[in-house]
Amino acid sequence: MSIEAVVPFKPVNPKSRLSSVLTKAERELFAEAMLTDVVMSLKEAGCNPFILSTVPLHCSHAEVTVSGEGLNPALNSLIGSSSGALLIIMADLPLVTPGVVRRIISTPCDMALGPGRGGGTNAIFMKDRSRFHVDYYGASFLKHREIAEKAGLSCEIVDSFRLHTDVDEKEDLVELMIHGRGKALEFLKGCGFSLLIEKGRVGVSRCTEE
Amino acid sequence: MSIEAVVPFKPVNPKSRLSSVLTKAERELFAEAMLTDVVMSLKEAGCNPFILSTVPLHCSHAEVTVSGEGLNPALNSLIGSSSGALLIIMADLPLVTPGVVRRIISTPCDMALGPGRGGGTNAIFMKDRSRFHVDYYGASFLKHREIAEKAGLSCEIVDSFRLHTDVDEKEDLVELMIHGRGKALEFLKGCGFSLLIEKGRVGVSRCTEE
Repeated sequence: MSIEAVVPFKPVNPKSRLSSVLTKAERELFAEAMLTDVVMSLKEAGCNPFILSTVPLHCSHAEVTVSGEGLNPALNSLIGSSSGALLIIMADLPLVTPGVVRRIISTPCDMALGPGRGGGTNAIFMKDRSRFHVDYYGASFLKHREIAEKAGLSCEIVDSFRLHTDVDEKEDLVELMIHGRGKALEFLKGCGFSLLIEKGRVGVSRCTEE
Repeated sequence: MSIEAVVPFKPVNPKSRLSSVLTKAERELFAEAMLTDVVMSLKEAGCNPFILSTVPLHCSHAEVTVSGEGLNPALNSLIGSSSGALLIIMADLPLVTPGVVRRIISTPCDMALGPGRGGGTNAIFMKDRSRFHVDYYGASFLKHREIAEKAGLSCEIVDSFRLHTDVDEKEDLVELMIHGRGKALEFLKGCGFSLLIEKGRVGVSRCTEE
């Protein structure tokens, strides 16, 4: 039986920290490209993904549920409304491969957490969702680890840079240019981004055609 | 037989990008603490580590070889002077555990590369060192992948955030505060660092006693 996987998504004015290199319209397309990459990896790994969106959205690869609630109440409603295994995975993880998803969902523990850079939580897998609740924002990884501990749930911390690397800032685009594949990389290249090496540091530059 | 592991190390004025939060003397102690953590993880994983230092150095946990050459010629001399397996791993990886080291050295491929954030290479493992040479600086991960390809060597890319996270900047200290253990974490805590959550972002702050 395929595992249910939810991908929270905010289509409007996403990825504001990329404003210096991408327009609002481009950021929306880029966020959708990253979402598609995540959804395709989930499907290839045998999961049954759906998108939890803040506004109505068309996606040809997965069903969309709309919720006007904040991230925590929306996800906790979802957890409370059903039972069984659930994977929550963020939409801005274009480096995630089907292999990474399989590593998460094949944990021998009761659950698995995928830490994100800067204290966040990029993935939560629960074999029995009724025993957990989410608390995103801030150092959510530490909060989630504590919630698991208090609930007596054994918890694997998935050690993957592909899962750890959420794309929020210009520096993160370097990771995508180096380790990416899929739609998000294609989008960046289409925008004219390339790697730029200056004084031994690696960055990205964008050349726009006239 | 234990695998030889070399840890390049620059003891003098290291980690200059941490100058805003650590004095030169503190950065030297911090770099040594990170080195110790890496060396201890190597030993616990069954490797035989030695330090390749730019200047004479006392270390109670591993032998020290001094080389005045740059990183690339020093390592390539070392590769050329002997045969057999070799692991090269950077000294600023305090999140690396013995488990990560075991993942690297148990690759089924001819060699393994551990990418570092920003295009760098944090670990190179060669089953037969005579077929490889190193080319650090810039986007060295891409260069190393190409060198392996041209030499016809199968190469695993080790997907580990613990290996990917080299500590260079203030933001990287967040990762150490959250995921660290060992001497480097102890040193930071002793300096008065703690996590600071402001407007949903996680950083570090330092409180110095009067």
